[in-house]
Amino acid sequence: MSDEPTRLRDTVVPIFGDETLGWSAALPNGASSKLVAGVLAQDDCAIFSLQGCQDLVLGSDYVRGSKFTLYELGYLSNFDVGYYLAMANLSDIAAMGAVPIALLTVIRYPVAMSDKDFGNVVKGVRAACDHVGVRNVGGDIGTAERLILSGSAVGVVEPGRALRRNGAKAGDILCVTGRTGMAGAALQYFRSLDDYEGRLSRSSEHRLLNAWRRPDPLIRQGRILCSSGAATSCQDSSDGLKATIESLAAASDVGFTVDEARVPVAPLVANVAELRGRNILDLIFGDSVDFQLVFTVAPQYLRELKGAFRTHDLSLFEIGTATESNDVIMRTANGAAKPLPGEGWRHNT
Amino acid sequence: MSDEPTRLRDTVVPIFGDETLGWSAALPNGASSKLVAGVLAQDDCAIFSLQGCQDLVLGSDYVRGSKFTLYELGYLSNFDVGYYLAMANLSDIAAMGAVPIALLTVIRYPVAMSDKDFGNVVKGVRAACDHVGVRNVGGDIGTAERLILSGSAVGVVEPGRALRRNGAKAGDILCVTGRTGMAGAALQYFRSLDDYEGRLSRSSEHRLLNAWRRPDPLIRQGRILCSSGAATSCQDSSDGLKATIESLAAASDVGFTVDEARVPVAPLVANVAELRGRNILDLIFGDSVDFQLVFTVAPQYLRELKGAFRTHDLSLFEIGTATESNDVIMRTANGAAKPLPGEGWRHNT
Repeated sequence: MSDEPTRLRDTVVPIFGDETLGWSAALPNGASSKLVAGVLAQDDCAIFSLQGCQDLVLGSDYVRGSKFTLYELGYLSNFDVGYYLAMANLSDIAAMGAVPIALLTVIRYPVAMSDKDFGNVVKGVRAACDHVGVRNVGGDIGTAERLILSGSAVGVVEPGRALRRNGAKAGDILCVTGRTGMAGAALQYFRSLDDYEGRLSRSSEHRLLNAWRRPDPLIRQGRILCSSGAATSCQDSSDGLKATIESLAAASDVGFTVDEARVPVAPLVANVAELRGRNILDLIFGDSVDFQLVFTVAPQYLRELKGAFRTHDLSLFEIGTATESNDVIMRTANGAAKPLPGEGWRHNT
Repeated sequence: MSDEPTRLRDTVVPIFGDETLGWSAALPNGASSKLVAGVLAQDDCAIFSLQGCQDLVLGSDYVRGSKFTLYELGYLSNFDVGYYLAMANLSDIAAMGAVPIALLTVIRYPVAMSDKDFGNVVKGVRAACDHVGVRNVGGDIGTAERLILSGSAVGVVEPGRALRRNGAKAGDILCVTGRTGMAGAALQYFRSLDDYEGRLSRSSEHRLLNAWRRPDPLIRQGRILCSSGAATSCQDSSDGLKATIESLAAASDVGFTVDEARVPVAPLVANVAELRGRNILDLIFGDSVDFQLVFTVAPQYLRELKGAFRTHDLSLFEIGTATESNDVIMRTANGAAKPLPGEGWRHNT
């Protein structure tokens, strides 16, 4: 096993080190960000040259590292958790409507982790960055008592145009970019696989696992929401759909009525609910880490926005309406009102 | 004990939440960075509005959290490790000659950590930020099996003026901003306190411990080096003085001859070396995490730079010279050459 400087030189730099090819991002307003020094420089910090007016967005996400249940169970590889680390951080940039320019990754590994296993974590980060078109420009590596993964992502957006959580108005339409519940359903399914008889097909199992193995930060969707100017609030659904809707409501000082009949259902989530005897709505609204974008749109802009999503072959589901009252409720098919299903973020008070 | 959203609302926001007062940083070239949304916004990301041409510097540092030896031994409090987390990250910004604009902190805590203890970590972060004049604008909190601390810092610097590691030229003077070895000496002293009879005075123990309790990122020194244009390379000494000098040598493709007689010695480090029977040079050059700036200056600019440091009542020590050959050596008082003492960053190959 190599020491830290050797790993930096022999593993990290070769995987991230083609940055000499140059990298830059431009916004439609002419502002640009150009990478001046990243991993190859092995300096105290990475450097970007910024030109023009732009807003910078910055976020950090710790991910579970070796404490991922599906990693402990052998369903996620080292490559997968590296990929996840990058994507979880980049999803925060997507939710702001920004163009990602940089990822910083903290990868601390147990002393016994082989060069190959460590390299696979780094390769997962790189693959995720390539998928999104961004660079990992630095971070921190070294030992710890277990695999610990944390990151920060940086993006740029036109001045004043970042998608915030606090702009929803009563009457706005609540939308989501895709079906939620897959990540939670995957946990439900795989962590108790031996306790049940019924199995999904191999291809279904593969797709279910991909919610964890290949999460996708919705950069394109965020950019459409941002450049359209139609979205009044936005957040990614990484705390679960219920928590996300409640968070938009609290930040914007509105309520929401969610229309049960319009909530999109992933067939696989339905299958897992059936196999595990769970309420499907609990899986869809619960604390499933799905990275969909949940957002609000003023009604007069909805048609145009839907057109823009359709043009790019991206999905968009209208699931409810913002209300004056601060209540977040669900309207069932027969018109009754009930609390949103699933577990939200709790408060002890 | 509170859950995560409650801690965010009741502990983090009150400690960081006076950001509505507004915060901005300006560079002498007129470029500015204005905080638009930080912790109070509780959004996916923090937002800064950037105007004018500036280079952005980004770095991440994981610190040991509850694995700090002196924390485990009871010498560092929760407040202290929060303070350290901020300062270790801000030191990377100092080493680039940049003005810090943002800190992101990842604070994961054991489920059993009380609200008060958690709050003290956050207060330590806040105190460090206040000391430097920067804001903690976001990050990530939640549980883990132990206290895990990681951060990222962001700074801005005039275009093309960031202090890099790779610009030292043969003939440049090697300098350091202060005495090294205090952090390493503190570890030596306190971790074996019960095994020895001799003790330092209480005030000396206090000062020794402060190397860990109140590290100081040398932002002012970095800014002087940057604005003077005199520094050809710079790095903070957080890997130890020997490793830092070797790193500057490798990045700049030069060697260094360090003049033993000119290396500044902290009396306390000498005292600890004596009490513990250690070679003082091993403590000064070893892997002591001191956050001094180690830099090179072209000889014709040295006088002016020393004047600037003196004007601001800041110390600067000339300790050697960059050489054509790639060897990093020490010249003893009698003129003999020997390897640099202390343990450097190892390479396995």
